[in-house]
Amino acid sequence: MTRPSHITRTFGQFIAGATWDQVPDRVQHEAKRSILNFMATALAGCREDAVEHTLASLAAFSGMKQATVIGRTERVDVLSAAFLNAASGNVFDFDDTHLRTVIHPTAPIAPALFALAELRPVSGRELLLAFALGVEIECRVGNAISPEHYARGWHITSTCGCLGAAAAAGRLLALDTDQLIWALGAAATQTGGLVECLGTPAKSLSVGNAARNGLWSALLAERGFRGPPTPLEGRQGYLNALAPSAPDWSALTDGLGETWELLQNTYKPYPVGIVAHPVIDAALALREKHAPQPEAIQRIVVRGHPLLAARTDRPHVTTGREAQVSVQHSVAAALLFGGAGLVQYTDACVRDPAVLALRAKIDVEQDADMAVEAAAVRIEMKDGAVYALVVPAARGSLARPLSDREIEEKLRTLAAGWCPAHDVQPLIDAVWALDRAEDAGAFLRLTVPGA
Amino acid sequence: MTRPSHITRTFGQFIAGATWDQVPDRVQHEAKRSILNFMATALAGCREDAVEHTLASLAAFSGMKQATVIGRTERVDVLSAAFLNAASGNVFDFDDTHLRTVIHPTAPIAPALFALAELRPVSGRELLLAFALGVEIECRVGNAISPEHYARGWHITSTCGCLGAAAAAGRLLALDTDQLIWALGAAATQTGGLVECLGTPAKSLSVGNAARNGLWSALLAERGFRGPPTPLEGRQGYLNALAPSAPDWSALTDGLGETWELLQNTYKPYPVGIVAHPVIDAALALREKHAPQPEAIQRIVVRGHPLLAARTDRPHVTTGREAQVSVQHSVAAALLFGGAGLVQYTDACVRDPAVLALRAKIDVEQDADMAVEAAAVRIEMKDGAVYALVVPAARGSLARPLSDREIEEKLRTLAAGWCPAHDVQPLIDAVWALDRAEDAGAFLRLTVPGA
Repeated sequence: MTRPSHITRTFGQFIAGATWDQVPDRVQHEAKRSILNFMATALAGCREDAVEHTLASLAAFSGMKQATVIGRTERVDVLSAAFLNAASGNVFDFDDTHLRTVIHPTAPIAPALFALAELRPVSGRELLLAFALGVEIECRVGNAISPEHYARGWHITSTCGCLGAAAAAGRLLALDTDQLIWALGAAATQTGGLVECLGTPAKSLSVGNAARNGLWSALLAERGFRGPPTPLEGRQGYLNALAPSAPDWSALTDGLGETWELLQNTYKPYPVGIVAHPVIDAALALREKHAPQPEAIQRIVVRGHPLLAARTDRPHVTTGREAQVSVQHSVAAALLFGGAGLVQYTDACVRDPAVLALRAKIDVEQDADMAVEAAAVRIEMKDGAVYALVVPAARGSLARPLSDREIEEKLRTLAAGWCPAHDVQPLIDAVWALDRAEDAGAFLRLTVPGA
Repeated sequence: MTRPSHITRTFGQFIAGATWDQVPDRVQHEAKRSILNFMATALAGCREDAVEHTLASLAAFSGMKQATVIGRTERVDVLSAAFLNAASGNVFDFDDTHLRTVIHPTAPIAPALFALAELRPVSGRELLLAFALGVEIECRVGNAISPEHYARGWHITSTCGCLGAAAAAGRLLALDTDQLIWALGAAATQTGGLVECLGTPAKSLSVGNAARNGLWSALLAERGFRGPPTPLEGRQGYLNALAPSAPDWSALTDGLGETWELLQNTYKPYPVGIVAHPVIDAALALREKHAPQPEAIQRIVVRGHPLLAARTDRPHVTTGREAQVSVQHSVAAALLFGGAGLVQYTDACVRDPAVLALRAKIDVEQDADMAVEAAAVRIEMKDGAVYALVVPAARGSLARPLSDREIEEKLRTLAAGWCPAHDVQPLIDAVWALDRAEDAGAFLRLTVPGA
């Protein structure tokens, strides 16, 4: 296919023209599920180092108190709020996952909209529609350039998220098609982010920037700040620079408005690299059924799609952040403690001698015939007994999605670790009622401790 | 060569360990020439649309009045000042050029240092040393990934400039080696910028971000904000993501501290794409010698290296910004008006009927045997006369550098277009005396009208 020249304009027309009534009920509901899950992980993450440092630094350069920092009492300017809330939501990689691209869709987009909604009141429906449109642009661009884009080193949540944030914020600002093209261009030239930074606080910079720069791009476009006509598909534009080979052009615009990428969104029960989830399911089920004593275990074999080993075969880890992408740590902790929550991914748990001893017994085998959603765990006991289980699809996957109640429960659990005295039921209720809210920004205050 | 793992650390050690006395006199002086040239173009650019819009927008999100916006009375926060002054200096692409990479070295780096120097007073020598080190990192990374990086669509001034700004600001903050590695990592994951945006205000976003994000990266690193150990050379780091094929590893660190990229810096006499400069020289010389009447000209043939046509063969342009990369417009305006200053690149001049008529007579020929620094112009008159000239190297090139006095004159000319009543001699004197200044930030106030 020759290089098309209609991509950005088609996006702009779609974003400007879509209506709430055109969004199927399931998509409308999925938008609320995504936001509820995001609030859960943002409350969990809002006091992490990456947030503390960037908040303290940004506050030194802005005296404005325009918007809420989720889970905290400080107020900051609108651009910084977008940055910080995106960082909080994503810092543990416990937020949502678009499986085909491994994009975390909500973190760059929702915070841009929240900050804007506090600056200029909008209805909940307007916000939810803008959110759905932003996710659509973000994930379609991701689909077109995956998996090479990420493999090359680009942190896809950041690079595609910035476009999604610009699209969403642009819609909330009621930009016209030309302005949306400018907004997407401004975002395209302000995006970046490297996979190399995963596991360090620096990871949060590009995620925060995605929300901040996407929002700013839309605000600039509203002022008439112009960009090129084909920022995405142009010869020296986003897709050529960020996709090592030709993108899948059809993935960008085919069926736009008919299919919805939000329906491909998933929510993690565990704060762990998504490929390790079926392994944790298997380990927890085997513990429940056989209660193997750790010291009586001879060897554990984890088998899965080659991507499992590529992403999570890390027997030697020393920090909680590293452990989140270690299948050895995940299996050891699950078998020892019967859980895979944030408490199993603290630095202290990672250094626990019992965990270290069990981690050393775990081997990872690659099986190209297995689906990436599946995994098998075999526990060989010193007495010769063997306990084995194959999990075809993990909890939280598209085949076994978390229920609304399970996402609520995730929020309650994470909020309890954040601020046990805080009643989160009003927040949960407000998210479910967002499509009926007259002032969509109001519910953010329900996340402020003591408010 | 196998992938090395010492690159970022070597940079960090070099930046932390260098001293002013190790910097050769010529390099010290070239740093001042670069800054003088930058002040000239920043004064010229400080009221362009890209600056007006971003200033108005950023001011709505920060109440801080910490630093000078060059050439203007507003004061803004330190991060915004870095952004805005970088945008001003580069908006016309009239700033300096590192020819091997076509990086504009000063715009992303000097504004980060200026803003920092206003926040925390430092000596002029400290600032000049930090500047030279920043340019060294910026241009060495550019050398390692050129020309493919730019050809792919990356705006190299932005992508490499952000690293240079982090290196320079990190040195001014007296960061240690580990902190400098974190600063370079934070900058690496915050950089971007697309060639597609050239010719539009959106171009300035990535240039401004390079200064702003580089500075912020150093400030975060000072706070202990950690990043990965090998952000540049790591498998999913900056060089792999931003260089389409393997970088020239040796260009990164060979001879570090022995050679200085600042000595490769050049200053434009004309606000035009650098490859068109010898053409303008030829046109001005032919006008001077033969004074051909425009209506008596039959045809003009411009001949040059294929890059001349690739970058500047644009017979049909409608705006001043486009005309800056049109060799047809440049030749027509030079022959008609005897100059190639900013007044020849206004929208009005581009639409002048006499210019349009002459532009239509100009053909561009490619000659692979010609050096990229050279060009030939042949004017064929209707009466059969032919006037021809070959220029082997343009004014302002490394072979024919602008003198100190010519850079001063460039500043005076551009300042006259900015604010005719403003006496710029104190500013010129202050730049030449920067290595003896106790408070390096003080001279910025000399750029404020009415101050």
